[in-house]
Amino acid sequence: MIDLIPRHNSPSSGLLGQRRPLGVVGGMGSLATAHFLEVLARKSRVERDQDHIPFIALSVPSISDRSQAISIGSDAPLRQILERAYWLEKAGCGAIAIPCNTAHFWASAIKQALSVKLINMVEITRQAINDSRGNEIHNLRSIALGTSASMQHPLYVQPNENGFGNDFFRSLNELQSEAVKIIADVKSGNIKNAHAHLMQVIQSARSFDPDLIILSCSELSAISGDLGDDNDIVDPINILADRCIDWWMAESQSLPGHLADRP
Amino acid sequence: MIDLIPRHNSPSSGLLGQRRPLGVVGGMGSLATAHFLEVLARKSRVERDQDHIPFIALSVPSISDRSQAISIGSDAPLRQILERAYWLEKAGCGAIAIPCNTAHFWASAIKQALSVKLINMVEITRQAINDSRGNEIHNLRSIALGTSASMQHPLYVQPNENGFGNDFFRSLNELQSEAVKIIADVKSGNIKNAHAHLMQVIQSARSFDPDLIILSCSELSAISGDLGDDNDIVDPINILADRCIDWWMAESQSLPGHLADRP
Repeated sequence: MIDLIPRHNSPSSGLLGQRRPLGVVGGMGSLATAHFLEVLARKSRVERDQDHIPFIALSVPSISDRSQAISIGSDAPLRQILERAYWLEKAGCGAIAIPCNTAHFWASAIKQALSVKLINMVEITRQAINDSRGNEIHNLRSIALGTSASMQHPLYVQPNENGFGNDFFRSLNELQSEAVKIIADVKSGNIKNAHAHLMQVIQSARSFDPDLIILSCSELSAISGDLGDDNDIVDPINILADRCIDWWMAESQSLPGHLADRP
Repeated sequence: MIDLIPRHNSPSSGLLGQRRPLGVVGGMGSLATAHFLEVLARKSRVERDQDHIPFIALSVPSISDRSQAISIGSDAPLRQILERAYWLEKAGCGAIAIPCNTAHFWASAIKQALSVKLINMVEITRQAINDSRGNEIHNLRSIALGTSASMQHPLYVQPNENGFGNDFFRSLNELQSEAVKIIADVKSGNIKNAHAHLMQVIQSARSFDPDLIILSCSELSAISGDLGDDNDIVDPINILADRCIDWWMAESQSLPGHLADRP
């Protein structure tokens, strides 16, 4: 029966059919990629394996450090991210998701370069905040915790627009320094420490009574446990999974006979 | 700078270079795939994103139900699994991992059909048990919990070789029925229920004082929490991740200038 399978099919050929899978640019970092795929599976709320969203995750993690590149004005990661996104596009993916907030520093260039849709995590998170709060993010008292680059070039909100008191900025710098340490702990596998540390930082952040705390690094999402269920927490990875599911549902419904490849 | 990237590279071209990534046949099920990738990231014990194992995970989950196929003597899933494994081979992967125990019913045929290495989860688990216990699995008092197919055609151990008492087989059937319900719960997203239920089943299994309890379905691994750390629990997904890391380390060391593509 093995001989029935054409061995050297192009990766972009028949297997994927008309239903183009989601492409995931992974490796920024690897744990965050796995966490995103787990959230995607959990949120899909289907009964059978066969009904889950098809995806290709390409995790070739030799991408230059995003935060460091931004701090020195280098675009090296953009080129490497685009190589991977093009690979996924060529392999037949119908949309691209990048479960890394800092990579979205280059989201406009990536979006412009792709012929398929980029499900832009920062854009959809800002939109989700607007939709759920009836107000734009910069009008809310928001604290974003992420990589050091996200302090210099905030993805979600400029901290000086937050409406906190004068003492806040020193504290914000301290919170941010702690977040950077937590992210490094996650990347090197100290998960239990990192989780406990994140809970402390969130408690400190909550002492300022913010409207929102945004987990603006996917490593923080990866170790956040049930934190994302709290009303004051915004987890962009959760929102990215929701929008990927929306995209897949819309794609599936637009195809005639979209259930045809079910076994 | 976007123009610098050759847009329509073949997926098997330059990006992956000499260091062929791990290929992961996913979607059996999707949560189990994500869990395997998480274990792989956690076990890699590296400091930086860039040092993690590169992989391509292909999750096109429209593969016929493995357990059902085995029960009716159908090989339909083999063809579908091979399509995906060939795709990964063609895309440039250097070895294939399949984080699904039941799929290993066809492991010999898959191994024979591939030109790259299959990291055979059942084979390496049996070997790991032998290495750690100094005894082959069929000489140990082992309880394997998995899909219904794994009762009819056990992957790891024939239950009648376990050396348990006469009353045991009725109880084993009950434990196995509960395991099948847990797996269905995981597949349909009832994770918290499934975890609590698994803990009850493990407690019941332990009342027979087995040497080993084998989580012989990757959905059980996905919700097992820290259970795999216990001495009497064998989690094949953990062992698969270990051997994938061993494979990657050996591959990397065999290449001249294997650090050349670090940023």
